[in-house]
Amino acid sequence: MKIAILGYGTVGRGTYDIIQARQKDFESLGGIQVAKVLMLEKEVDQCGLDPDLICTDYQEILEDDTITCVVEVTGAKDQGFLFMKEAIERKKHLVTANKAVVSQHLEELTGLANRYGVHFFYEAAVGGGIPLISPLKAQAKINTIDSIEGIFNGTCNYILSKMLDQGLPYGEALEKAQDLGYAEADPTDDVEGFDTLRKLVIVASLALGFPVLEEDVALEGISSIKVSDMDYLKDHDLKIKLLASFKKDGDDYGLIVEPALIGRNHPLYGIDGATNAASLHGNFVDQLTFIGPGAGKYPTGNAVVCDIMDLCRLKEEKINFTKRLKGSQNDIKAPYYVSLDSDQNLPKDWIDWEESVDGGKRIRTKEISRDALVGTIENLRKEGADIFFARIQ
Amino acid sequence: MKIAILGYGTVGRGTYDIIQARQKDFESLGGIQVAKVLMLEKEVDQCGLDPDLICTDYQEILEDDTITCVVEVTGAKDQGFLFMKEAIERKKHLVTANKAVVSQHLEELTGLANRYGVHFFYEAAVGGGIPLISPLKAQAKINTIDSIEGIFNGTCNYILSKMLDQGLPYGEALEKAQDLGYAEADPTDDVEGFDTLRKLVIVASLALGFPVLEEDVALEGISSIKVSDMDYLKDHDLKIKLLASFKKDGDDYGLIVEPALIGRNHPLYGIDGATNAASLHGNFVDQLTFIGPGAGKYPTGNAVVCDIMDLCRLKEEKINFTKRLKGSQNDIKAPYYVSLDSDQNLPKDWIDWEESVDGGKRIRTKEISRDALVGTIENLRKEGADIFFARIQ
Repeated sequence: MKIAILGYGTVGRGTYDIIQARQKDFESLGGIQVAKVLMLEKEVDQCGLDPDLICTDYQEILEDDTITCVVEVTGAKDQGFLFMKEAIERKKHLVTANKAVVSQHLEELTGLANRYGVHFFYEAAVGGGIPLISPLKAQAKINTIDSIEGIFNGTCNYILSKMLDQGLPYGEALEKAQDLGYAEADPTDDVEGFDTLRKLVIVASLALGFPVLEEDVALEGISSIKVSDMDYLKDHDLKIKLLASFKKDGDDYGLIVEPALIGRNHPLYGIDGATNAASLHGNFVDQLTFIGPGAGKYPTGNAVVCDIMDLCRLKEEKINFTKRLKGSQNDIKAPYYVSLDSDQNLPKDWIDWEESVDGGKRIRTKEISRDALVGTIENLRKEGADIFFARIQ
Repeated sequence: MKIAILGYGTVGRGTYDIIQARQKDFESLGGIQVAKVLMLEKEVDQCGLDPDLICTDYQEILEDDTITCVVEVTGAKDQGFLFMKEAIERKKHLVTANKAVVSQHLEELTGLANRYGVHFFYEAAVGGGIPLISPLKAQAKINTIDSIEGIFNGTCNYILSKMLDQGLPYGEALEKAQDLGYAEADPTDDVEGFDTLRKLVIVASLALGFPVLEEDVALEGISSIKVSDMDYLKDHDLKIKLLASFKKDGDDYGLIVEPALIGRNHPLYGIDGATNAASLHGNFVDQLTFIGPGAGKYPTGNAVVCDIMDLCRLKEEKINFTKRLKGSQNDIKAPYYVSLDSDQNLPKDWIDWEESVDGGKRIRTKEISRDALVGTIENLRKEGADIFFARIQ
């Protein structure tokens, strides 16, 4: 199989290196050859690749019928989507690591791939190096998947681990993450939960068999967490994670990304630092948990190469997204941990436990409606309040 | 695809039920139909199956050319192996959950399947419901797998968890496991580590690309562990697991099944009760951990059905076991925990820490040669000593 790699950043380089290193191992699959690497004019001088491989005009790749698979790892949103559509329309198989595009255009790209009779794979879009998409597809064919919980953003998990372990304030932990290259200069996508949300949309769509929408997901990021909140966790032997949660109950389902406090018996309790993990429950298989590196040149490249290998091995097969339903279960009931200023209050009958601390107070609620809590907190925030909340798992 | 199920015990029933329940979901794969279920004459009356499905003569299945896949779930060793060989020789794809046969005959059955151009799958043979064999094969094609650690026997893990959590003596914990159906009447295969050894042989062979032999594995079971040993673990915030360990270093590799003490940061620390898990490390993908139910009607049936689905999806592809090397790394150096009678001694210069307890003593050694330790312990055991040892991970 002759492939073209679009983009020669971290993931593109990882993918290229692995394919070169394992040439002999791919012989039994008929061989995998990188025929072209698409990059910008300004990147050409520094790339160090054989000039025959370098390409700066996507049309060349599209028009080369010997290239049967396009690997999109540009990281670009609009441009990436265009590249993908054009590849499929030229009947080229598509492998991508682009979670933003997959999350937003899963249904359209899947439909297009079916129409043109090509495969559309995106193992690297969720959970970095963890083989997750491929087993999830298989399990969803055999099982009714009734829940998925995931830690899908290494940046957030690193920040939360640092805050808990070393008592660092949010801003300092974020800076450390930026110094290590875990977090972007503008960390909004990570810390406000958008990146996690996209990954939840992808796995929930595969679990349900129809595409869910980004706007269906209830979202709260980690940027309001304070150092003092960590004391509560330590006192109670809890950890805090930005959890992506999918729950299905009959035809009803719920999708939430928010900080959650988890205890020692939770399957994701041990997942610290930049590691990612997902735990799913199916009616036959019971509970499965997958843990691995959430990002990085070689882990993510490895996931891309897994997809390319699958292409070599598979007969034609279609995924049919059958129907679309709207999630209605986001108003879960759960106990919540809330930290707020001393002069702010939650309704009395919500409160299970309350404690005053320097310049504020910490509350553990009874089991309350998430919608009601978020409504109340939104109002308090409009008045300028500095509030952090997390579900107690 | 028309299949025959050989054996209608726990796994056979689980497999049958799942296939019946998911008929509609398999349509996109061309359909999966159970054509025959092989059982003993005496089982026929109680099986509750449509009489057209029931078969008591394997020849009928072999001679039916419309049956293209045989699912061997008899659990029988010699008979199971014969069934498998005959199926392949009739050019039928083979799916099995029979770890004893796969471990002992992996090379022969793989070679036979290649010769006759059929697939030979055994996802259910290791780790029950965990999708492990299939991702391991993929990762081994892309990566040099340099270590695997697994908890592959739910019975042992359940017994060890009970002993640690509830302070039960070994015998009582074993009885509980037997009451719950986790352990057989004769628990030797489980508690002496033979079952774990077989699974290690299978995963190590796939990681290396050539078959390792059962006799290459250094083995120590869990039956000598005493209640007093658990105090040490509690004092040091450690857990004890029967670990299957594969380590590769260049052309050298080692295979050990033995009790190991693991601390809070070990990826398998949280794996308690009958759960199974495996953690592998590859040069590109880094560390991946897979956790799930190690046994049971539906989890194991689920793994069998995953294999059948793969058969429907895959082009022909061969695994070639290329070469055979002998493992030579079993003489690892590690610190060991040893509990023995008061009148017994280890060489003085091995001892890092020693403590007297009721009727015995507990020793933590420095980093010592496993071979030297096992030699010394064998001699002491010959003199009637009651010794337990475990690697400190």
